[in-house]
Amino acid sequence: MSSFIHDDFLLGTQQARELYHHFAKSEPIFDYHCHLPPAAIASNHAFADLSEIWLGGDHYKWRAMRANGVKERFCTGDATPREKFDAWCAAVPHTLRNPLYHWSHLELKRYFGIDKIISPATADEIWTEANARLKTMRVHDILKNNKVAVICTTDDPVDSLADHEKIRATGIATRVYPTFRPDKALGVNNPAAFNAWVERLAGAARTTIRSFDDFVAALKTRHDDFHAFGGRLSDHGLDHALAEPCTRAQAAAIFDAARAGRAASPEDWARHGSFLMLEFGRWDAARGWTKQLHLGALRNANTRLLGKLGPDTGFDSIGDFPQTRSLGRYLDTLDSTDELPRTVIYNLYPADNYAFATMAGNFQDGSIPGKIQFGSGWWFLDQKEAMEWQINALSNIGLLSRFVGMLTDSRSFLSYTRHEYFRRVLCNLLGADMARGEIPEDFQLVGGMVRNICFANAKNYFGLGLAPEFAK
Amino acid sequence: MSSFIHDDFLLGTQQARELYHHFAKSEPIFDYHCHLPPAAIASNHAFADLSEIWLGGDHYKWRAMRANGVKERFCTGDATPREKFDAWCAAVPHTLRNPLYHWSHLELKRYFGIDKIISPATADEIWTEANARLKTMRVHDILKNNKVAVICTTDDPVDSLADHEKIRATGIATRVYPTFRPDKALGVNNPAAFNAWVERLAGAARTTIRSFDDFVAALKTRHDDFHAFGGRLSDHGLDHALAEPCTRAQAAAIFDAARAGRAASPEDWARHGSFLMLEFGRWDAARGWTKQLHLGALRNANTRLLGKLGPDTGFDSIGDFPQTRSLGRYLDTLDSTDELPRTVIYNLYPADNYAFATMAGNFQDGSIPGKIQFGSGWWFLDQKEAMEWQINALSNIGLLSRFVGMLTDSRSFLSYTRHEYFRRVLCNLLGADMARGEIPEDFQLVGGMVRNICFANAKNYFGLGLAPEFAK
Amino acid sequence: MSSFIHDDFLLGTQQARELYHHFAKSEPIFDYHCHLPPAAIASNHAFADLSEIWLGGDHYKWRAMRANGVKERFCTGDATPREKFDAWCAAVPHTLRNPLYHWSHLELKRYFGIDKIISPATADEIWTEANARLKTMRVHDILKNNKVAVICTTDDPVDSLADHEKIRATGIATRVYPTFRPDKALGVNNPAAFNAWVERLAGAARTTIRSFDDFVAALKTRHDDFHAFGGRLSDHGLDHALAEPCTRAQAAAIFDAARAGRAASPEDWARHGSFLMLEFGRWDAARGWTKQLHLGALRNANTRLLGKLGPDTGFDSIGDFPQTRSLGRYLDTLDSTDELPRTVIYNLYPADNYAFATMAGNFQDGSIPGKIQFGSGWWFLDQKEAMEWQINALSNIGLLSRFVGMLTDSRSFLSYTRHEYFRRVLCNLLGADMARGEIPEDFQLVGGMVRNICFANAKNYFGLGLAPEFAK
Repeated sequence: MSSFIHDDFLLGTQQARELYHHFAKSEPIFDYHCHLPPAAIASNHAFADLSEIWLGGDHYKWRAMRANGVKERFCTGDATPREKFDAWCAAVPHTLRNPLYHWSHLELKRYFGIDKIISPATADEIWTEANARLKTMRVHDILKNNKVAVICTTDDPVDSLADHEKIRATGIATRVYPTFRPDKALGVNNPAAFNAWVERLAGAARTTIRSFDDFVAALKTRHDDFHAFGGRLSDHGLDHALAEPCTRAQAAAIFDAARAGRAASPEDWARHGSFLMLEFGRWDAARGWTKQLHLGALRNANTRLLGKLGPDTGFDSIGDFPQTRSLGRYLDTLDSTDELPRTVIYNLYPADNYAFATMAGNFQDGSIPGKIQFGSGWWFLDQKEAMEWQINALSNIGLLSRFVGMLTDSRSFLSYTRHEYFRRVLCNLLGADMARGEIPEDFQLVGGMVRNICFANAKNYFGLGLAPEFAK
Repeated sequence: MSSFIHDDFLLGTQQARELYHHFAKSEPIFDYHCHLPPAAIASNHAFADLSEIWLGGDHYKWRAMRANGVKERFCTGDATPREKFDAWCAAVPHTLRNPLYHWSHLELKRYFGIDKIISPATADEIWTEANARLKTMRVHDILKNNKVAVICTTDDPVDSLADHEKIRATGIATRVYPTFRPDKALGVNNPAAFNAWVERLAGAARTTIRSFDDFVAALKTRHDDFHAFGGRLSDHGLDHALAEPCTRAQAAAIFDAARAGRAASPEDWARHGSFLMLEFGRWDAARGWTKQLHLGALRNANTRLLGKLGPDTGFDSIGDFPQTRSLGRYLDTLDSTDELPRTVIYNLYPADNYAFATMAGNFQDGSIPGKIQFGSGWWFLDQKEAMEWQINALSNIGLLSRFVGMLTDSRSFLSYTRHEYFRRVLCNLLGADMARGEIPEDFQLVGGMVRNICFANAKNYFGLGLAPEFAK
Repeated sequence: MSSFIHDDFLLGTQQARELYHHFAKSEPIFDYHCHLPPAAIASNHAFADLSEIWLGGDHYKWRAMRANGVKERFCTGDATPREKFDAWCAAVPHTLRNPLYHWSHLELKRYFGIDKIISPATADEIWTEANARLKTMRVHDILKNNKVAVICTTDDPVDSLADHEKIRATGIATRVYPTFRPDKALGVNNPAAFNAWVERLAGAARTTIRSFDDFVAALKTRHDDFHAFGGRLSDHGLDHALAEPCTRAQAAAIFDAARAGRAASPEDWARHGSFLMLEFGRWDAARGWTKQLHLGALRNANTRLLGKLGPDTGFDSIGDFPQTRSLGRYLDTLDSTDELPRTVIYNLYPADNYAFATMAGNFQDGSIPGKIQFGSGWWFLDQKEAMEWQINALSNIGLLSRFVGMLTDSRSFLSYTRHEYFRRVLCNLLGADMARGEIPEDFQLVGGMVRNICFANAKNYFGLGLAPEFAK
């Protein structure tokens, strides 16, 4: 049997192979959204073993292991690194047709040069070989080997930028920027946590917060700080867009109540959040930033295991929430005063792909190409079937050629192969189109589009500074 | 490179080619729903240039241009025809994988005999050749060349039928009928516009309107007028079906308030509309008409550009509205008294395709084949991927063989190639089924179905008069 | 022309054929959910003619006939068996691309050895041959020929288990178990029907019911009775999961009102039902049962024909109801006290497949493999396209390898070919994956998974007793 991950993996036509190998493969990586820890980049982290780098923090794998009947001890618990690794290798054969099967083999091959089918029978060899390779593979090696031009981390406004400053001081070619994600500014429904957070915000903004105006000003100061550091993106995780009418006085009253320990009702929570979301949008527009909206997640669905294990451990899912009216109202309110920033809308409920793609079209105003982006397949949709859905929806409804392309959205340094995976899926679709005669067999035309989607579109769209080797 | 639009374009199997060339290609066109202007047919309009016939009024192209960063001046503004045309040719290479890429090349080939890939490099030749051809291509030529047996335009009840009468007097073989689309009769939430419209209605119905009963009677008079002229279809554009309980007295009170300048609340708007929609349904049933319901559009999403450019300029999108309960209640209410007319239900939110197709099945009562139709892919869904979804949903849930098939829904005389496009998609699906052995390789059986879907089903279903050459 | 239903029907690759013929075809059938009448199994029913066994009770066929313009007389009415059969044969050519076309030909071939394309031209031969064969084909023959190891019927708690006891006494190898489906226990919105049902429940539970506590206790007695007989499954048909807060006192008050003839409001109906659904869940968990949730049907949409023909005659459809929040809350409430049973969630609105599959993942707790199952394509989705959607959603989001596989959900003894159909679809998908290199071409690995999905997973999951020949 030849290699499972071979040169033409996922590339079903000669045209697809040509597109991938000649136009996609060598492009640098522009990872404009992820959850990598800046500290690990700053310290050029060295990994103890394959378990740490491969399984640590990976809730996708934990979900699969639990579904396979693996006890929590081997997922997030106190089993040894090798025990966890063995539990994972025993689970992998049961993940056939799940993206984890592809991702895992692709990661082993690209990062460790290991070309084995993962199973209990190969676990020992994999463990030994990969750990040997890890000794010479630190974070900066990974970034360099993968030609990562840009990383945008995801940062709370209260986070210090100290790690980002340390990264800059290391002189690596990868430019790492913070992303302004003020989700906790909306937390007026939980006064205890909110007030603690407001105090941290005051500290980060070098001020005191006595009023709603102070609060908004402190947030703005942090937006300024992120901008001064080179950040050009914001991000928000919401069930659905917030677009309730709310005056500044109403928002202030809701804020004041939370400061006094009175939790906002769901309606007041939505009003206060709507007010802030408009403020955030205006700041982004004024400074030429790009706003990201991650819509459609139903989070923390399992109270018992959330209580034991905390958030982001694998108990989130896809919600079927009404989206289009509130999203339309939010974008329209900003647009009505010409204050709608570049926006990337990510959708988690796949049935809404077309609706989201058409909504983006309502706010393309000719100011720049692809001003409103229908974002890449996100989270549960970051796999071949759902990537194809996103690409097809964008193609049929908007302009694929203007797409800013893939991101990792990952907490793992082993995820850069997701870009390879996306590029193979993209080239496979386009190659099949060529083979069927649905697009011209013109490699300069189609290959040029591929290259743009891989890198140049993002470079032109986000306005982030690049190292000279990537800026040309 | 051979032609992009060649004889077997989109036909992936030998079986598909046989079906298309022997059964589909030569069938006449039965365009039972479009937005063509009757005046242009009446006057046998001659087009000034390619820009007028190809770009004028085409919000699909404008959306694509805006998404490509083209300024409004070159879409709907005061740029010259040639400037607009050049802006479009520069955008076309960026529409790869969008239906516009196919439609545009198909239109150039079929109407103008031009076989070039559209780009700035070919713009000049295309402009010259097409404009030369346009000198001998007036509206009646187009209808004749495309074997258009029937056109059903979309008409407001206040519209005069004068242009329709003029068309009839021209003696063209294409039969052109008005469709009764009384959307503005529901406008009690906007008294100023509503009252102006009611006055126009009174004029059209040769009466005065002092009461709700007068109003309903005037609408009925126009329904009668359309019937007398040969019209057999009505049409409604709604977010979702209206099916709120409402007595005649309640509807009259809401109407009276609007007449007195008091806008209906959303709830009252829905009640009044629900009452009228039942009336309309009963009129259709009594006369053997077919009712069309276009559901699921979220219209006029961009206030700023709507204000500048007006409606139908490209700022509408797909809504994710609850549909099934209200649609079921509407159909059931009419059916419960045996007053449910033939109905075609069009869906814009593709995730609802199956739900709509099963709802149609609930009201198939054996009275005629395919009494309730799950309509063709509409608007944003009028492209290969979404046409296939509609055909597959209808096939799996209902009877594809009884489908009344394609319509253009277009404002452009260049859209008859949409029928060709649909027929190729249909034959491609069926041919692939044959090739895979999923349906018998029996060309009389399958080809007969193709022919019916192209023309005969619509001819039998709608009960519209045809010219002798199409009636046989 | 070779046979339409040939050995490799639906198997598009060499790999698919290998998987089907070597791993799937010979596996026994584990039909863990259906609507077969226990009495017909107990009596080893003999069928009068092809009309009875093929058309009787089959609302799928009736819907297709009505859509084909066939009068009700020939569907559910007083036409002769042969007339109904002829009406069906005339409709079959019009069902091309509908699953009925495949099912019908597959049923004729497998049960009757008839290899003809169904049409009016072949009706007579089919009628004669099939009726001859029916003389030697009684219910027990069918079960034996199809290697049916398990049947779980669907039973009302008020149903006697007398027929089930008779079945057991026949000594057939098929184990037949009742499923506890207490939908009518929720009927407090219709006091007349509810109170009649409560009296029947009291009788079945050998008690009297004077209070809500008595009511719950009687239901629990029947749960105990089903358990004592070997039943290990419950089932519920709901628009969406019920998860409204409701104390025992509130539920009792709503119950008491209904007992006194006062219908519950929709809100009270939901509260009372929510209380009961939690009780049922806890009983299932305590005894190691599996709970089935059938969500998303919009039932009894056609009042006029429902009144004439009664329920389950073909007037139900797919609803677009909000699902995820209430489903999450229901599962979470049970899980929070560690009382969430094994659960199979069936979805009828295909756009929700991914959302449901991710919701299942939230409650995989590592206790057993595949504890929460995303169920097989159901009802309108029990066909190739929608089976593929379900398999793909489960594959991409969860673990296909742990899937308990197919069920018939049928009222007909001719439906065991649905298992063959499912297996062909499954093997076709996996074979195509192999052929494209998306999964390893390792027949032991992939074939083992196929075999598990066909039988072993269900055997291990449900904990039902099997005859020795199936238990090995």
